[in-house]
Amino acid sequence: MQGNAVIGQSGGPTAVINQSLVGVVEGLRSAQGVEKMLGMRHGVRGLVSGELVRLDTMDQAALDRVANTPSAALGSTRDKPDGAYCERILEGCKKHNVRQFFYIGGNDSSDTCRLVNELAKQSGYDMHCFHVPKTIDNDLMKNDHTPGFASAARYVAMAFMGDNLDNASIPGVKINVVMGRHAGFLVGASALLREREDDGPHLVCVPERTFDMDTFVGRVEDCMSRFGRCQIALSEGVQDKDGNAIGATLIAGDTDAHGNAQLSGSGALGDQMAMVLKKRLTPVGGTPLRVRADTLGYQQRCYPDASPIDAQEARQAGVFAAKLMKNGERDGSVAIVRTSDAPYASEMQRVELTDVAAKTRHMPDDFLDGDFNVSDAFIEWLRPLVGPMPVAGRV
Amino acid sequence: MQGNAVIGQSGGPTAVINQSLVGVVEGLRSAQGVEKMLGMRHGVRGLVSGELVRLDTMDQAALDRVANTPSAALGSTRDKPDGAYCERILEGCKKHNVRQFFYIGGNDSSDTCRLVNELAKQSGYDMHCFHVPKTIDNDLMKNDHTPGFASAARYVAMAFMGDNLDNASIPGVKINVVMGRHAGFLVGASALLREREDDGPHLVCVPERTFDMDTFVGRVEDCMSRFGRCQIALSEGVQDKDGNAIGATLIAGDTDAHGNAQLSGSGALGDQMAMVLKKRLTPVGGTPLRVRADTLGYQQRCYPDASPIDAQEARQAGVFAAKLMKNGERDGSVAIVRTSDAPYASEMQRVELTDVAAKTRHMPDDFLDGDFNVSDAFIEWLRPLVGPMPVAGRV
Repeated sequence: MQGNAVIGQSGGPTAVINQSLVGVVEGLRSAQGVEKMLGMRHGVRGLVSGELVRLDTMDQAALDRVANTPSAALGSTRDKPDGAYCERILEGCKKHNVRQFFYIGGNDSSDTCRLVNELAKQSGYDMHCFHVPKTIDNDLMKNDHTPGFASAARYVAMAFMGDNLDNASIPGVKINVVMGRHAGFLVGASALLREREDDGPHLVCVPERTFDMDTFVGRVEDCMSRFGRCQIALSEGVQDKDGNAIGATLIAGDTDAHGNAQLSGSGALGDQMAMVLKKRLTPVGGTPLRVRADTLGYQQRCYPDASPIDAQEARQAGVFAAKLMKNGERDGSVAIVRTSDAPYASEMQRVELTDVAAKTRHMPDDFLDGDFNVSDAFIEWLRPLVGPMPVAGRV
Repeated sequence: MQGNAVIGQSGGPTAVINQSLVGVVEGLRSAQGVEKMLGMRHGVRGLVSGELVRLDTMDQAALDRVANTPSAALGSTRDKPDGAYCERILEGCKKHNVRQFFYIGGNDSSDTCRLVNELAKQSGYDMHCFHVPKTIDNDLMKNDHTPGFASAARYVAMAFMGDNLDNASIPGVKINVVMGRHAGFLVGASALLREREDDGPHLVCVPERTFDMDTFVGRVEDCMSRFGRCQIALSEGVQDKDGNAIGATLIAGDTDAHGNAQLSGSGALGDQMAMVLKKRLTPVGGTPLRVRADTLGYQQRCYPDASPIDAQEARQAGVFAAKLMKNGERDGSVAIVRTSDAPYASEMQRVELTDVAAKTRHMPDDFLDGDFNVSDAFIEWLRPLVGPMPVAGRV
């Protein structure tokens, strides 16, 4: 069926989501039946409003520049379309004679893709629908890891390395809050560059383990008496035994200064946790304990220094989605499957939209070591993904 | 006079303070009269307590690794010695037969160096005293710029570039709080990678300009109506017309949730400013305004990706301090002087300890453009210092 292709980007941006965009464009070049390639401004919102931009007229140099630029070049959206919204998306597709629909995003975006696909099928509208994976949280099913994660992990690992040395030079308690609402992969990356027994992070708090404040405070105390300092990697998604986010609990319970339980774009969780530790930890020799908190923030997803492997795989994922279409597939999502550990190798595979849509992957048990650490297996899994890393010199 | 040399690091670490440490060691190798080279653990604190470590026995490969590692490898200190403390430092020097005293740090550290030097002179103790400049704030007198600043500026510029693209992809108000208690050089670096009229940061708030909340809110509103978004670079040191830090005022006035006016290692200023803007800005079409705040945090001083020029100059500053000693100077500080703009070139010069000790340099007027922007002159001054930079591709 002759028609136009649309490509959109959705959800939180990453350092390599534009690689996937350019990959789809490149993959579609040799496709039969594709007239124009159109980018949706701000995801499906742009398709509904008709804010579409030509991508097939861009030259390779311009595409390469876009591919190497962090954040979503087309604009992104936080919209999570329901059935009625998806009807409007399908109307937009019909209006612009869209016959290929590509959506780059996380589990919400794959669900949008699934819904649009089902509506198109039901209405007898002939359209290919593909989801291209993207998420720094690494919480998509069927994937060894997802495009965007490795670059975020690279940033987190390097930030913690520098901060660990900073904390060693001026000792105290240092909390760093890391993104990842449901999965601990990214906060686990904080441990990648540990080399010595006394290197931080000394505690890694993941959403997959129940966060008990008393146990936590005890572990911080232990660490302070062993090393005279304690660097903490705290996931924004840590939860208590009743499944309540610690961030929300601390903020609601202690003060409403921050007004809400928004996890990103605020330093509230780290600051509240610092207050708890200042109150509960015994000062050494009358000197008030030095407790500091940083929230790593949006740099985790958009710092312009992507992992080379991540950039390459994100591009391939886009190309592969286009290839699925050219091979006659009606729909699907793309998954990165690891085919070799050493030397590291991966390949792209087609998976069903329903396998990833609106589902969440968590850290497997063997990636964790007790309640406050990641395992060696996790570190070995992560190491090949992040690119060249600095090595600390010591006196 | 035959004796030992001591070298110490003081104040907030930087990405290149170890370059200066290694530079001093290298510079002293060919010095007459130097027996051992000793590193002070945690600055003058280590000299007083006798925690000293041999540096002259390290091989070149180990020294190079240390030089390329962020943070202070010897450990740092926040101690600001008074006269009595400096007496104990001098006692430590005498006890360990120290005849060369090198102290790497900011304006407080240069003052320590000055005090120790004066006490030594008064007591007739024959000792060279040199200060080696270091500060990400760039607030040392007599210097075109200081070692550590350019790497921090590199980080800030790259963080703002990524965050600007992030903010463009999901529009709203975004506040990023930047270090620099008294000087706006570092927050100004946020503007380095602006290319288009609509690129952020749209507002740059420096400590050198009085921060008026009403004017600020008005400017944010203007920006929202022009571009539908607003990225703000907010110095942690912004002050109102009475010289009160806005951070402290907001926190004290509105809530005491954060307990104190500590500027770094907390997200309080950004979060409080976000609350003010949420309250005062008119929502568009009933949709609550999206306001987010990140505090760039310790990554500014210790992210392991130094500016190559900064690394080189920090090393040279250490070598030059040793050279001053070899040339027979009794004391002094080192200043980086720019000798050419294009191509960029600099040289090291000796300045008096009293010229830098406990003094603060501010941004010159011609580096500022109104109350909420830096000038082209500032950008031209900054550009050669930060190393290779990414260029954004756009669709």
